[in-house]
Amino acid sequence: MADRRPARVAALRESLTAAHIDALVLTSLPNVRYLTGFSGSSALVLVTQRDLHFITDFRYDTQVRDEVGDIATVRIEQQSLWSGLWNLGSTLSGIEVVGFESAHLLHRDFQRLLTEGARWQWRPQLNLVEALRESKDPDEVALIRHAGKIAIAALTKTLKEVRPGITELSVAGILEHTLRDEGCEEFPFSAIVASGPRAALPHARASSRVIEKGDLLLLDFGAQYKGYCSDVTRTVVIGRASTQQREIYEIVRHANAVASASVRAGMKGQEADGLARRYIEDRGYGDAFGHSLGHGLGLEVHEAPRLAKTVEAPLGRDAVVTIEPGIYQPGWGGVRIEDDVYLASSGPEILTDFTRELVEVG
Amino acid sequence: MADRRPARVAALRESLTAAHIDALVLTSLPNVRYLTGFSGSSALVLVTQRDLHFITDFRYDTQVRDEVGDIATVRIEQQSLWSGLWNLGSTLSGIEVVGFESAHLLHRDFQRLLTEGARWQWRPQLNLVEALRESKDPDEVALIRHAGKIAIAALTKTLKEVRPGITELSVAGILEHTLRDEGCEEFPFSAIVASGPRAALPHARASSRVIEKGDLLLLDFGAQYKGYCSDVTRTVVIGRASTQQREIYEIVRHANAVASASVRAGMKGQEADGLARRYIEDRGYGDAFGHSLGHGLGLEVHEAPRLAKTVEAPLGRDAVVTIEPGIYQPGWGGVRIEDDVYLASSGPEILTDFTRELVEVG
Repeated sequence: MADRRPARVAALRESLTAAHIDALVLTSLPNVRYLTGFSGSSALVLVTQRDLHFITDFRYDTQVRDEVGDIATVRIEQQSLWSGLWNLGSTLSGIEVVGFESAHLLHRDFQRLLTEGARWQWRPQLNLVEALRESKDPDEVALIRHAGKIAIAALTKTLKEVRPGITELSVAGILEHTLRDEGCEEFPFSAIVASGPRAALPHARASSRVIEKGDLLLLDFGAQYKGYCSDVTRTVVIGRASTQQREIYEIVRHANAVASASVRAGMKGQEADGLARRYIEDRGYGDAFGHSLGHGLGLEVHEAPRLAKTVEAPLGRDAVVTIEPGIYQPGWGGVRIEDDVYLASSGPEILTDFTRELVEVG
Repeated sequence: MADRRPARVAALRESLTAAHIDALVLTSLPNVRYLTGFSGSSALVLVTQRDLHFITDFRYDTQVRDEVGDIATVRIEQQSLWSGLWNLGSTLSGIEVVGFESAHLLHRDFQRLLTEGARWQWRPQLNLVEALRESKDPDEVALIRHAGKIAIAALTKTLKEVRPGITELSVAGILEHTLRDEGCEEFPFSAIVASGPRAALPHARASSRVIEKGDLLLLDFGAQYKGYCSDVTRTVVIGRASTQQREIYEIVRHANAVASASVRAGMKGQEADGLARRYIEDRGYGDAFGHSLGHGLGLEVHEAPRLAKTVEAPLGRDAVVTIEPGIYQPGWGGVRIEDDVYLASSGPEILTDFTRELVEVG
């Protein structure tokens, strides 16, 4: 793979100029990873027009040299990373106005900027790196596609083991086990395994509830591969589906299909959301679709853009987004079908290839 | 179990008085859970001397009523949680100086306080709730003990399946599967499964490395039960241990045993750290023990107190802490043995009951 990092750093430098700042301190680890390749959990990066200074601690001594290489000047700091930044201060000339990531800096650390970092003037910044990350290059799309393949392979194997009498927690265990066997390096989020009435809770985790014949079973989970995430939901029926289950399932399936086929880069977030929402509203279930249609996906499982009612910003070129309509009825259950879709210039391309037909298991 | 929440809220109100603030906005979810019982992922709480206002979103409508009950006045907010707070403003009288959690508020949200929340004077606070959480009540200790049992049961089963030729990722999969089967509701952190030379990396995750005969295999993982975490490490040898492996293992084992037996509430964090460190230093491996001895454990897997070289603060009464000495040699591997220890007034009580003798597997 070509090394995309220099181009990314160059693009960020243009953003610094536009924002009238001489430098930017990065505290978001996914942003650091995007620009430098570092996958560890301790890093502070200072980007200037000329240099890239990378500060980490002794635990990552070997790893930072392997991953970051010579793209940045690396300092291993014995005390706190912030001391590393202040020590750097004296070697930098011409740096006066420095940006920081307002959405990735705790107030406690912001106070350090004003005291220990008082030699610089500080300017809060939002989304400078996130905006670059929204458009995926071909290598990134390939990694998300691979993370999607891991998720689908694990789902295929897991559904073979699901049967009445097993708990949601056990299903989560089987799913996570198969995800690992398929090469999943982290879980991007805690798997949702929600059965029966619990499928109506959009943010249920797995519980000790025993799965019964006739239940809807909703699985929402992801895989991570070389840092990139997938995020998939399927809802199945345990045993034979009832007429009502089938009816609601078909509405969600159609909403998913329409949105996945029609979503385009350049569309406003609210237009994209409307693709599925209008269909569901027209069938009388508008109030039962209580969340937004989707979100961007990449180094984080939630990133730009957002596909939601209130969002006027357009979907970025070459973004990868989730399409995840759902219908939830308290006490009855819920159905959600979620895919990851690449917004190529030639049109949307679905990265998560698993049947959307109603599956009856067990 | 007795409802401890009213006593916790009363204790926090005393802290507000001591800090000269009329109210406190809580943004830390573990702090919110400790005071109200809410286990969801979206909450903002305002504590005054008279009231407890709880703001969440529609997704948690049912859950908040089940979990929080009548201990707080609940508002379901359609827009952002912050709007809920500002809407509340007009109904509060006598509130002028309000604290916020400096270590749990992003700069972006801090700016909201200064603009939308300008009717109040804002004061950054640190550790008001965390200080209360450091001392565990008997119910909390029982939950951590149960989370420890889950971890130990999973470890026992997992080690039976480990053999040369299996990857670290597969071992993680088996471990996570058995954790779920034992009732683990979340993974407090991503399991470390590090074999051979990778065991020398204190923050390795699981990788696709194939485990070989003669490897050290380090497993560091935890379980969560009703919100409370355990955190355990064991290091085993694949096949027969070499003389050097056995020698280093015995040093770490002894350091763990000495510290677990001697650690006491009231001891400074650095004294506790010294219990194990001195022993390891005396054997000539001081430089190879490159992290601190341990940390508190409860609703979070890392919380107060800290057992580290530089910490002068005393360990709280009835705290639960990890004791996790280690020796790491780049290129060779590493050994860490970690237990969870309750600092009862009668002396330390180990909550994680799994052999500390060297285990040879596969």
